[in-house]
Amino acid sequence: MAHEKARVLIVGTGGVGTMSAYALEQGGKAEVTAVMRSNYDAVAKHGIDIDSIQYGNDIRGWRPTQIRKNVPDVAAEGLAPFDFVLVTTKNIPDVSPTVADIIEPAVTPNKTAIILSQNGLNIETGVVARFPTNPIISSVSYVGATEKSPGKILHDDPDVQKIGPFTNPNISDKVAEDAAKRYIAVYNPHGKLDVSFDADVRRVRWRKLVYNASFNPVATVLRMDTPRMRMSRHVIDDLVRPIILEIIAAATACGVTGFPEKLEESVIRADPVDTEFKPSMCQDVEKGNLLEVENIVGEPLREGEARGVPMPTLRAIYGLLKGLQLKAKESKGLWEPKFTEDNPYQ
Amino acid sequence: MAHEKARVLIVGTGGVGTMSAYALEQGGKAEVTAVMRSNYDAVAKHGIDIDSIQYGNDIRGWRPTQIRKNVPDVAAEGLAPFDFVLVTTKNIPDVSPTVADIIEPAVTPNKTAIILSQNGLNIETGVVARFPTNPIISSVSYVGATEKSPGKILHDDPDVQKIGPFTNPNISDKVAEDAAKRYIAVYNPHGKLDVSFDADVRRVRWRKLVYNASFNPVATVLRMDTPRMRMSRHVIDDLVRPIILEIIAAATACGVTGFPEKLEESVIRADPVDTEFKPSMCQDVEKGNLLEVENIVGEPLREGEARGVPMPTLRAIYGLLKGLQLKAKESKGLWEPKFTEDNPYQ
Repeated sequence: MAHEKARVLIVGTGGVGTMSAYALEQGGKAEVTAVMRSNYDAVAKHGIDIDSIQYGNDIRGWRPTQIRKNVPDVAAEGLAPFDFVLVTTKNIPDVSPTVADIIEPAVTPNKTAIILSQNGLNIETGVVARFPTNPIISSVSYVGATEKSPGKILHDDPDVQKIGPFTNPNISDKVAEDAAKRYIAVYNPHGKLDVSFDADVRRVRWRKLVYNASFNPVATVLRMDTPRMRMSRHVIDDLVRPIILEIIAAATACGVTGFPEKLEESVIRADPVDTEFKPSMCQDVEKGNLLEVENIVGEPLREGEARGVPMPTLRAIYGLLKGLQLKAKESKGLWEPKFTEDNPYQ
Repeated sequence: MAHEKARVLIVGTGGVGTMSAYALEQGGKAEVTAVMRSNYDAVAKHGIDIDSIQYGNDIRGWRPTQIRKNVPDVAAEGLAPFDFVLVTTKNIPDVSPTVADIIEPAVTPNKTAIILSQNGLNIETGVVARFPTNPIISSVSYVGATEKSPGKILHDDPDVQKIGPFTNPNISDKVAEDAAKRYIAVYNPHGKLDVSFDADVRRVRWRKLVYNASFNPVATVLRMDTPRMRMSRHVIDDLVRPIILEIIAAATACGVTGFPEKLEESVIRADPVDTEFKPSMCQDVEKGNLLEVENIVGEPLREGEARGVPMPTLRAIYGLLKGLQLKAKESKGLWEPKFTEDNPYQ
């Protein structure tokens, strides 16, 4: 019965957001409102085409329950409150409006649970502060999904997520945990998906960073796919491996311990050797997009260094990413160089 | 009188080599044979056009005494021996034939002095070993000269050189020093040029590396000009400054001491802020050329690390340059990736 379905708003409907929209509607327990920007017109006209490793290669003209161009203002528009707001946008706090600013009109105090499906550390800080009465939930996603052109999705790695509550001083552990489990029940009602609860959000996030702070930014700086990276002794031994070890040391200093012995070896060999895969940030630099520098590299670096962990390799990569970010900002008209002696440091 | 002129062979006649050819012929004490490759046909037909900050913007159709397509084989061709062989090629020992291999046919034992006008450390090693009876001379050049198209040279920074003998176990200090001074007398007979003797070759070379191992490779990885680098706090503080300090520490460990206090500050502000200058290696990466990785970055890194100096920032940059070198090799057909599990490390 439709009135029993959970109302879910998805903000950021690229590849990952679209596959969540599809999974949520497929499960039969949710009705999804999807906020679309660049792809709104294409989807309004033709719907969404999906070639999916999980749902088949013949999904054509699909639409979620509702699509919108803007984040709804629930109070002003007199809408029923959303049970869940799922955020799958990129996180670029050094440039863009914050997630809290973007979603604020759609969040009903004491009601809406907010799921942040974004990479890296400390993504919840501003959201926890802005919405003290709302549960804030972490989703760490391993899905592979890319929007090849507006409304055309290639879904080439299964939808795997680890979901749990962020640490939140405003909300009791029980309330936060219940909200996370409720979301999983809505997302994965038949238990068919590998979308499961994991209470140890910090561990899940640091674990993903072992790959995501090493291969991802090094691929970005080199504009190189992961098999070629593995063919270069120097790229592995001078960059990827040291960063992995620095991340593990930082996690350990933060109390996240017990990673397997020789984790670096399995991470180095995790990607298939016969697929010329470029990690997401590398795809971004090649498209001239802004980069998710701060949560994926800056925050683990600051967490580790604040605890006295030497992280010189990640520090160097961070400096390079910030340089590339400045170039991306300039190309988008968000920064202008000034060729004068009073050096305007950025 | 022509028969008293020194016979000079120049191998590598791009911007720097051409300006040396011009200076040598202008001085009246040398007759130059220039080995040209990609620019031979253009120069044979039209000569060389030079827009020069030192010699005027109207040099048109100039030619040295002789131009050749190949390094002469002095013995086989029955030529008079060369007094000097000046090498101004790039140094890419990880890919190309060695300098010793290239110049061997033109070197007459006990007679020819070899001048290496190339950047970085340990460029003389193979040459000293191959030519035990020949003086080997270092030129560290600060000229700005670029071949804009075949035979068209823009000379925009004056010809400044520091010249001295390399350490050479086979040759007495006196003989080596005399050869260096003889070369200066031929190059700069009227004392008009800032081309002078400096016996402390190691110091001169490490001093140039303070800039050349920091700004040059970081600009290369970022594909960014030096004023924009200075506008980025992260590029300076996370990369350029740490590398400068690592280079100074490595030099110190090698016994090259007494650099000025706060040298890093003056090096960081050395380039003009209003000229969008990209260092040579950055120009190379943008053209898809092979990079001078080993002598400019690899050798100072190995010298420092062998003496226990921590150089993590330069180590990371070295790994990135080797990754970029692999891409350049692939694009030139010098390396082919193999997408198999028996990972062929390069």
